[in-house]
Amino acid sequence: MPGKVRQMGIKIGKLPVGPKNCMTDVAGVQVGHVTLDEPLDQDGAYACTGVTAILPHGGNLFQQKVTAASYVLNGFGKTTGLVQVNELGVIESPIMLTNTFGVPAVTQGTLSYMLDLNEDIGLITGTINLVVGECNDSYLNSIRACPVTPEHAIAAIRQASTDIVQEGAVGAGKGMMCFGYKGGIGSSSRLVKVEQQEISYTVGCLVLSNFGQSTDFLAERYNASNRQSQSTLSPTDGSILIILATDAPLSSRQLLRVIKRCGIGLGRTGSHFSHGSGDVVIGFTTAHSIPHTTDQLMETRTQLREDHPVMNQLFVAAAEATEEAILNSLSQAQTTTGRNGHTVEAYAFHKA
Amino acid sequence: MPGKVRQMGIKIGKLPVGPKNCMTDVAGVQVGHVTLDEPLDQDGAYACTGVTAILPHGGNLFQQKVTAASYVLNGFGKTTGLVQVNELGVIESPIMLTNTFGVPAVTQGTLSYMLDLNEDIGLITGTINLVVGECNDSYLNSIRACPVTPEHAIAAIRQASTDIVQEGAVGAGKGMMCFGYKGGIGSSSRLVKVEQQEISYTVGCLVLSNFGQSTDFLAERYNASNRQSQSTLSPTDGSILIILATDAPLSSRQLLRVIKRCGIGLGRTGSHFSHGSGDVVIGFTTAHSIPHTTDQLMETRTQLREDHPVMNQLFVAAAEATEEAILNSLSQAQTTTGRNGHTVEAYAFHKA
Amino acid sequence: MPGKVRQMGIKIGKLPVGPKNCMTDVAGVQVGHVTLDEPLDQDGAYACTGVTAILPHGGNLFQQKVTAASYVLNGFGKTTGLVQVNELGVIESPIMLTNTFGVPAVTQGTLSYMLDLNEDIGLITGTINLVVGECNDSYLNSIRACPVTPEHAIAAIRQASTDIVQEGAVGAGKGMMCFGYKGGIGSSSRLVKVEQQEISYTVGCLVLSNFGQSTDFLAERYNASNRQSQSTLSPTDGSILIILATDAPLSSRQLLRVIKRCGIGLGRTGSHFSHGSGDVVIGFTTAHSIPHTTDQLMETRTQLREDHPVMNQLFVAAAEATEEAILNSLSQAQTTTGRNGHTVEAYAFHKA
Amino acid sequence: MPGKVRQMGIKIGKLPVGPKNCMTDVAGVQVGHVTLDEPLDQDGAYACTGVTAILPHGGNLFQQKVTAASYVLNGFGKTTGLVQVNELGVIESPIMLTNTFGVPAVTQGTLSYMLDLNEDIGLITGTINLVVGECNDSYLNSIRACPVTPEHAIAAIRQASTDIVQEGAVGAGKGMMCFGYKGGIGSSSRLVKVEQQEISYTVGCLVLSNFGQSTDFLAERYNASNRQSQSTLSPTDGSILIILATDAPLSSRQLLRVIKRCGIGLGRTGSHFSHGSGDVVIGFTTAHSIPHTTDQLMETRTQLREDHPVMNQLFVAAAEATEEAILNSLSQAQTTTGRNGHTVEAYAFHKA
Repeated sequence: MPGKVRQMGIKIGKLPVGPKNCMTDVAGVQVGHVTLDEPLDQDGAYACTGVTAILPHGGNLFQQKVTAASYVLNGFGKTTGLVQVNELGVIESPIMLTNTFGVPAVTQGTLSYMLDLNEDIGLITGTINLVVGECNDSYLNSIRACPVTPEHAIAAIRQASTDIVQEGAVGAGKGMMCFGYKGGIGSSSRLVKVEQQEISYTVGCLVLSNFGQSTDFLAERYNASNRQSQSTLSPTDGSILIILATDAPLSSRQLLRVIKRCGIGLGRTGSHFSHGSGDVVIGFTTAHSIPHTTDQLMETRTQLREDHPVMNQLFVAAAEATEEAILNSLSQAQTTTGRNGHTVEAYAFHKA
Repeated sequence: MPGKVRQMGIKIGKLPVGPKNCMTDVAGVQVGHVTLDEPLDQDGAYACTGVTAILPHGGNLFQQKVTAASYVLNGFGKTTGLVQVNELGVIESPIMLTNTFGVPAVTQGTLSYMLDLNEDIGLITGTINLVVGECNDSYLNSIRACPVTPEHAIAAIRQASTDIVQEGAVGAGKGMMCFGYKGGIGSSSRLVKVEQQEISYTVGCLVLSNFGQSTDFLAERYNASNRQSQSTLSPTDGSILIILATDAPLSSRQLLRVIKRCGIGLGRTGSHFSHGSGDVVIGFTTAHSIPHTTDQLMETRTQLREDHPVMNQLFVAAAEATEEAILNSLSQAQTTTGRNGHTVEAYAFHKA
Repeated sequence: MPGKVRQMGIKIGKLPVGPKNCMTDVAGVQVGHVTLDEPLDQDGAYACTGVTAILPHGGNLFQQKVTAASYVLNGFGKTTGLVQVNELGVIESPIMLTNTFGVPAVTQGTLSYMLDLNEDIGLITGTINLVVGECNDSYLNSIRACPVTPEHAIAAIRQASTDIVQEGAVGAGKGMMCFGYKGGIGSSSRLVKVEQQEISYTVGCLVLSNFGQSTDFLAERYNASNRQSQSTLSPTDGSILIILATDAPLSSRQLLRVIKRCGIGLGRTGSHFSHGSGDVVIGFTTAHSIPHTTDQLMETRTQLREDHPVMNQLFVAAAEATEEAILNSLSQAQTTTGRNGHTVEAYAFHKA
Repeated sequence: MPGKVRQMGIKIGKLPVGPKNCMTDVAGVQVGHVTLDEPLDQDGAYACTGVTAILPHGGNLFQQKVTAASYVLNGFGKTTGLVQVNELGVIESPIMLTNTFGVPAVTQGTLSYMLDLNEDIGLITGTINLVVGECNDSYLNSIRACPVTPEHAIAAIRQASTDIVQEGAVGAGKGMMCFGYKGGIGSSSRLVKVEQQEISYTVGCLVLSNFGQSTDFLAERYNASNRQSQSTLSPTDGSILIILATDAPLSSRQLLRVIKRCGIGLGRTGSHFSHGSGDVVIGFTTAHSIPHTTDQLMETRTQLREDHPVMNQLFVAAAEATEEAILNSLSQAQTTTGRNGHTVEAYAFHKA
């Protein structure tokens, strides 16, 4: 029966988790899913895929941007929008996740949504940068049929809420696999308390896991498996998208430092950032709301003193939340059957 | 009357140009355009835009990849596909250019084209990386209406040929403006001869120019203008996509070194890589044909000795060809009227 | 007779220059030189070299750091300290320039100076990051003899002042050559006025020029030369170090964007960032004084609104000041004779 | 009693180790140490430091360069020489390790050594790029006294051999500490066998470990400790230098991909790449010998097919060898006393 690994007695790291132990513990962050699960014809073609939308806040993201950064652990991937994120250090649209060939449709849908919301874009102001990440779900999903449409992207955005994040075979995670078992969406969070102050920061991670072979998984690290036989599924190429949210006041340079540590958590599960894997991290902080236009010359940004111990704690939080989010993507996913009857089994964690 | 600036007596640099003085001087490279030029309604909405396709060779690019590199001069842009180009140093699809909001449709069309050509993609082999560059043509084009469709992208690929490249207000360049005048597609080439050998390399550049204000243009450098009044058009944000092709044997690291010099040519025209400009360079060499799969463990690549003088000549060629291609994008473009009757005038170069 | 090119009627760009037209127009910035000019033996060995120190302010740089960034145009160079500048976005020591093989001695001298100033370094606080740039002056200087000592570095720091910067064959520039003529230290500045406000920012550039062959120089751009014969000196490898100072409030990410535009100015003189050249830009802003330690959790930084027109004006200023600083390094340098009687002639600019 | 962790029954990963389980399993690679261990005065000042030299081969490295790459995990460090390594993808000198303030002296000594070996440098050919990494050993070593001299660097190079690498408190590792215990030099190796062929590649790792607090160490992962009390030593800043050698034929781009995976091994020990740590990886392959000059236009390089499974195995090897090298740096180090009587205890691994 699915559940978070923490409910099974598997604790990752030392920092306390947030109340929901997921990305939406970061105040204001919204997540929404649209899941496709239906035959496309009578010959085995099947839509086993979806879209996941992450909104840094519930307002108009183009008008109120957030500080952001991205980091490519291994670039065998097709994530869009990173050129501008890297240059300007902001995100101005929902962060969308889908399957590899769903990227154009999801980009188109997100564009439509943002154009409807902002009548000035493309007329009296500039354009908008859209960020869409992807993994290849072609074992379960008829990816060549491109079943994801722009409307699915819009629906995922509209369904986004601050509720606890649904995990496993849902949204963009519907058709994904991880370490040869069913993977997909996973999430976790950490609290970083500032000593001798009433201040506490939250770090929330959401992953779309789709990487690794069963022999890579460092299961013994989690006292995890009692299976007789291991999965022999071996995807031609995998990927993982890692989205990290925080409310800590960080510059984009500082945020980049924090999200680089997500790779530590990924590595601890057993990944080696394999050749065919698009392992990409995108981070944002809700600490600043940066208006699209103002009549101001300057703006003032608050950021952490980099030598304060809390900075290292944020590094730890990024690594721990990523590792636990990956495990949750496994533990929450149910056995799934997709195209041509292909089935990927759920991974059986022990209850401690 | 349009023409290349060289016909008007304006010579850029010292290196000899190729027979066609355009990108298709590099053997095998193909370029195709689809141009949209029609009213979308009776209230002024107008499709003044298009698609340009650059094919490193006429074969199946997914099966026979080319060595590639990319370089971001200023990242206020939405070019897709660079994450994987940077990781693997190859391009495996046509390089597509269009307007900013045409990117999803052009990606979708290019994907469809490549899927049709390769039945294994997404089934028994992995996915495919698509590279789409863009500029914002919203002064002349009703960009919010998204008039570009996937079929336009397919048509541009199908029309690609090794003929002399059409320049000016054509293809993706239809609605672009440069230094406040009509810009768009421009191209130029250079020959680099190896002393005391019968070997000569070709460098071909194609630009999609859409940047700068008239006061930026270093017209005196070209003894170019006798206008009484300068253009007062001042786009909210511009961009330039620079594509550099060569047949010189270069590793992706060496190619990156060469394409970085394209920024020198851009700067010499008067650009300062302005804040709102997405100034992106993509380069490839046709020297290696890299099979998608083999049963080999190793491959052998020929590359230039980096300390050979020809390396510096390739740097010079990249700078010169870029500068001249930008000027050709101006000199070849005709006065164009688009949405709401907006008109952008051609720039009048003198004939020497 | 030496002088700045502006005195000869050569104006670069459109922005106004500062009162001294050099780096020390940025309030508080100090520059100091130590020049070596003496035979080392009777067989032609000659010390024709030196050290230049740039101090972002006159206080204790380790205790009060400045926001900084670095950018490598071409990495055939040995500049030290950039790893930490890139990670943390600060500089905490004088920026030192010397010849290639003088780097260890200059680093040692600067270290000693800073250790004397800060008794806590290496005991109760961490270490210190030192930034030393270099060019190869081996045509004029007996570089293998390593005539520069740690004491020369300390002397250069001690002599630093806010006075007008000495240019030409002085300090680290003593033995350098540019476009086959005598180069070395050059400097220039620009003022960026904020419209409708009483605010004005200053950009100051200092270069150590040591690149290019005479055939590269775009002399016609400056109506510059009437020589019958060109220099045939052709260094095995060159380099240019470009240091950009400003008082504009910029984050390190923004500063990086500004200093990237120094390459535009370099390219306009005729450079192609040649293979064997170490072309490196280091920038800092004096706008923030960042204490080494505090008991604070957070700090507040003021930065420019990136979409304000003044940002683009800073880009222009960086390009213009770099170009003019390079020309000043030529125009201010006198014919110099060094090792084995090697002589490099001054470049003769016309007076307009 | 010191020894490698494998002798204590702690196995890291799945790949077989080389015959010596250290870096010199890669044919031709040489390692040499010079250790300083003596009082500097009668008031507690103490030289507890040293120099380690890694020679990719025993010949003249300037004349026969090796393909190389570098990667900065966290840039709070002062490693020199990376600008040129990144640009050209080669190393042309011994890779030197020492304490932070020993960098100038070690650079000077290595320069002298290489100048003696190559009479053309600085006269008829260009200069030479030196690579020196460092960690801060100031708890045990009187770092402000700069006890390391250029002669120590030369001696370390001269003592380099292909023998089994000495580990622990030796060479540059003499004064280092890791997870609050005695660290320093550690090494390990892996063999990557190509299926169905007689080919096998070797990966050798050498670390200079000087990072982490005892609470970070994931000791349970190694069934490692039975201590009652943990170390309370907490360095102000740490660092780790990771040097990876291989004989696999890789381009510098491919090598960069491989060495990025060293961070996985580091993360698995418990490191979070903490703020004050300079975590730097430098890699080289001995597969190509690249002559300094030739009269050739082109050269041919053999490289692995990137999609061959052996590429992923090299990734695994990099992660495993790094992790085990770090553990060996702990297990091989003996309790050490340095300045002011400061003592760092050895870590007690269990024998299984």
